[in-house]
Amino acid sequence: MHFKGRTVAAFILLTMVASVLVTLTLADRWIALGSGGVAAGSASNSPGQDDLSEKELGKLNTVMELIETKYFREVDRTKVLDGAINGMMEALDDPYSVYMEKHTADQFSESIEGSFTGVGASVTMKDGKITVESAIKDSPAQRAGVLAGDVLLSVNEDKLEGLSLSDAVAKIRGPKGSKVKLGIQRPGVANPIHLTIVRDDVDFETVFANLRSDGIGVIEIRQFSLNTGERFIEELDRLEKLGMKGLVIDVRDNPGGVLPVVVSVAQPFVPKGKPIVQVEDRGGKREQTLSKGGGKSYPVTVLMNKGSASASEVLAGALKEEGNAVLVGQTSFGKGTVQVSYDKVLDDGGLVKMTIAKWLTPLGNWVHEKGLKPDVEVLPPDYYTVARLSKTKTLARDTIDEDIKSLQIMLAGLGYETDRKDGYFSEVTEKSVKAFQQQTGVPVTGKVDKTTAEKLEEKLIERVREDNNDTQLLKAVEVLKSKLDITP
Amino acid sequence: MHFKGRTVAAFILLTMVASVLVTLTLADRWIALGSGGVAAGSASNSPGQDDLSEKELGKLNTVMELIETKYFREVDRTKVLDGAINGMMEALDDPYSVYMEKHTADQFSESIEGSFTGVGASVTMKDGKITVESAIKDSPAQRAGVLAGDVLLSVNEDKLEGLSLSDAVAKIRGPKGSKVKLGIQRPGVANPIHLTIVRDDVDFETVFANLRSDGIGVIEIRQFSLNTGERFIEELDRLEKLGMKGLVIDVRDNPGGVLPVVVSVAQPFVPKGKPIVQVEDRGGKREQTLSKGGGKSYPVTVLMNKGSASASEVLAGALKEEGNAVLVGQTSFGKGTVQVSYDKVLDDGGLVKMTIAKWLTPLGNWVHEKGLKPDVEVLPPDYYTVARLSKTKTLARDTIDEDIKSLQIMLAGLGYETDRKDGYFSEVTEKSVKAFQQQTGVPVTGKVDKTTAEKLEEKLIERVREDNNDTQLLKAVEVLKSKLDITP
Repeated sequence: MHFKGRTVAAFILLTMVASVLVTLTLADRWIALGSGGVAAGSASNSPGQDDLSEKELGKLNTVMELIETKYFREVDRTKVLDGAINGMMEALDDPYSVYMEKHTADQFSESIEGSFTGVGASVTMKDGKITVESAIKDSPAQRAGVLAGDVLLSVNEDKLEGLSLSDAVAKIRGPKGSKVKLGIQRPGVANPIHLTIVRDDVDFETVFANLRSDGIGVIEIRQFSLNTGERFIEELDRLEKLGMKGLVIDVRDNPGGVLPVVVSVAQPFVPKGKPIVQVEDRGGKREQTLSKGGGKSYPVTVLMNKGSASASEVLAGALKEEGNAVLVGQTSFGKGTVQVSYDKVLDDGGLVKMTIAKWLTPLGNWVHEKGLKPDVEVLPPDYYTVARLSKTKTLARDTIDEDIKSLQIMLAGLGYETDRKDGYFSEVTEKSVKAFQQQTGVPVTGKVDKTTAEKLEEKLIERVREDNNDTQLLKAVEVLKSKLDITP
Repeated sequence: MHFKGRTVAAFILLTMVASVLVTLTLADRWIALGSGGVAAGSASNSPGQDDLSEKELGKLNTVMELIETKYFREVDRTKVLDGAINGMMEALDDPYSVYMEKHTADQFSESIEGSFTGVGASVTMKDGKITVESAIKDSPAQRAGVLAGDVLLSVNEDKLEGLSLSDAVAKIRGPKGSKVKLGIQRPGVANPIHLTIVRDDVDFETVFANLRSDGIGVIEIRQFSLNTGERFIEELDRLEKLGMKGLVIDVRDNPGGVLPVVVSVAQPFVPKGKPIVQVEDRGGKREQTLSKGGGKSYPVTVLMNKGSASASEVLAGALKEEGNAVLVGQTSFGKGTVQVSYDKVLDDGGLVKMTIAKWLTPLGNWVHEKGLKPDVEVLPPDYYTVARLSKTKTLARDTIDEDIKSLQIMLAGLGYETDRKDGYFSEVTEKSVKAFQQQTGVPVTGKVDKTTAEKLEEKLIERVREDNNDTQLLKAVEVLKSKLDITP
């Protein structure tokens, strides 16, 4: 876990592994399939030409029989069958082609749809307590009066103490229409508050826009969910009406999403008839998606980093090559393939997400495993991405530790003197620790124990959240201003 | 890769992963199966009760069809099917239950049988050259006159230069009866020598015995292959006839092998009628294997370490609990299960190795994930297990690196002064590097470049190979002597 501002809060929903999220999806509930004969449960009744042969089936049956009759413990047969499907997908050696059993599939679908069922509070772990970061606009939590800073004590009378964040979140979530009773400790209120909330569909926000006082608009897109296109156009219109002079589109750490959505986001910036993206099928046939009309008179920069993947790269590629935009930040992730999520072909709620094509930029570049290079490279300050302190040991003078590396980066980020950042706890490191302890009211020991470590992280998070420390964003704004001929 | 004396030489055969080798096997070519109906290829023709249902089969067919028709690249269908079987085995969550396709299965069978087809030379990589460590007794290589120290230059006129050890080994090996022409550079001989060798079955040695001048015998067992039992008894008889007063059985880094073999090794030390091992099937039923007669008048120690697994632990457990032996060294690996390798049920040469039972010591202890504790604990000197130097960078004063930790352990092991072993290149470290360089004829820079690193490793290997630095072995001998009332 990094300290990147936006990832400090653990969104209630984002508990999936990265390779699942890095995606560019065509979901088969919206995209019609060809007549390949793939339909739920049909394969065994009407054997297709690609069905398992007698010999292949014999092999699988033999192994299943060995497991059921000889293995030294009893085994859940469903788990073994899921294992077989996992194994088939893994044999493709493509991290983006995966099988998800029902639970993971449900989470994935929520992510793609940009909505989930729950109370709609974003929570984080703070000092070992489940703490509300914010209540999502118009969510059941907001309507019931949940506030940022509220500490969740219990769910339906079950205490949350000692649970991990994801276990706590699992308790809070539940089906639409069901009730959940939350026990809350509110800062400044003596007794716990009890709120009963009816769970509902909650749209989570993927688009965050603001207009700076200098006339530059910044729209951050966190992922390309189904509702992201509409929300983006809404915010773009709003900023334009406010007289925006230039636009930064921030897709840092955006893992991707749905292809038609990113096309709709790119379209306003790409002139009519020009390609936004090309898709190449397994036969090598290419199909271009052309803009239905767009082009802006104000300058645009796309802000990206090595976490900008897939749909984010489609956007960056299209806006650079056909939209005259400048790419600022770091080389992007490098994922140049398109997946379809087949969520109806398995009748048990499982889902197969499979790579079906490559995508190429308008000029025919394949970014896979290379990424897009920025026109203007800016690295984030090293304290943005520093590893967290483990807090399991006390760090002291003249020792060596990975944690001391992090400590030194943090101290430097907070403006204290540092002579080395290599993990050797030097005299200067000790002096700076003492100065930090002095200034933040922690016992001045020169050693970094749990209390000092937590205070360091707290102060660092504050610093990361101040926009004027975001050197990548500042550069993206500067590039726009130089085009507009405004003195920075 | 560690510097443990015996692992410095890469045996021509041992290219398999550790979890495959850690085993206690009943191979189905020697052990009759019950009437569970598992037979090669039969399952699909006469459906058993555990066969895949229509619904399960439908699911697998659907995924196979998606892969064959939609995936963005063409796929090797055999690989996908192997993936399915791998996935089924992985779902068991047992590292010892694995599917091996033909190539791996063949290597595994060779390991179990204690023989392979080839020329019978043990080779290692030395200064970037494929060098013969030894020619196995009675092997084609020995008969053709291959000597330790010979550098292999070419195989069938193909140069070996630049190849990895395992790639070179793959070139040398081949089917029984086939010819291979080796180009050899022999130390002290000006021109290359060319030898043509006919490949044959080669028994590799798993038992190494010697009688020390003090009358203590040491028998090292490297693994329990099919021929190990016979070889052990042969060597045991030989040492006894030479008047052995006490015996060290060294099973350090012995990953296991075949259950009936370890029973035959234990038997001479366990009195008639006493249990050697107990096997508990999936129903919880226990069966004891009783000794057919044994017991020795001389004292025995079993020397083990954390690499002593499975069959090694059966031996240590039996000899401790029923053979009056003393366990010396470190807590063993901790693997308390029995596998059967089903190598005939899949008709394509593949093999399913599956855990079918637990095994327990004579007194009913299950060592799984705990290991056996030694009666006398002795750790090896830290330079025995030090990580190798990466040799990709030059190490110098006042820097921090994992490689510097290794360097400091090596310097101390070679008798040079060290003030720290934490990876910080101190003044004392530099002084010791200079002293080492001075004494070994390397340019005296105080920095550790590739030349100095290689010289350090060379000297360390020499030191490791001297028996009188083997503190664990020395302790095992000392324990015997105290029992014999011989002043050490």
